[in-house]
Amino acid sequence: MTEEKREDNTIYVGKKPAMGYVLAALTQINNGAKEVLVKARGKLTAKAITVAEVLKNRYVPDLEVKDVKIGTEELTSEEGKVSRVSAIEILLSKKA
Amino acid sequence: MTEEKREDNTIYVGKKPAMGYVLAALTQINNGAKEVLVKARGKLTAKAITVAEVLKNRYVPDLEVKDVKIGTEELTSEEGKVSRVSAIEILLSKKA
Repeated sequence: MTEEKREDNTIYVGKKPAMGYVLAALTQINNGAKEVLVKARGKLTAKAITVAEVLKNRYVPDLEVKDVKIGTEELTSEEGKVSRVSAIEILLSKKA
Repeated sequence: MTEEKREDNTIYVGKKPAMGYVLAALTQINNGAKEVLVKARGKLTAKAITVAEVLKNRYVPDLEVKDVKIGTEELTSEEGKVSRVSAIEILLSKKA
């Protein structure tokens, strides 16, 4: 689950409503980005899928899902306790 | 999001704890299945990722994520109202 050079076009999906992340991605595309990477962890992975699907189906018809990666990430709490969470990375790319 | 001939090895992730689906998939593999397909819709897509990751990381080390598809499905309620939900399909396959 490592990504290089793509940080600028990465949308980290958090607790806000999905639409905010859709609009953030749309802004990047309107600013010339050819691809965006939608990332999330834990329960937010479900929202990441929704963000990608709404963006593609409703706003950017020439966008396609180029790659979907799933994985497990380790989180270390302040007390040093390690827990594991699921993660997803969805790479959306403009059709050539 | 259509799948043929794989129904026997499909795990539909629902509201029960993730571990039940992990064990269901493990049973299929122990019965000779070379691949299993983990499917879910809506918020349960997050649990599907966890099911796939736990199965692979903790129980079947020679399993790999062969394909992940995301999509949108339409649900029709009894009143005929159509709503859309995100969906995921994770194909796990034994390494050759």
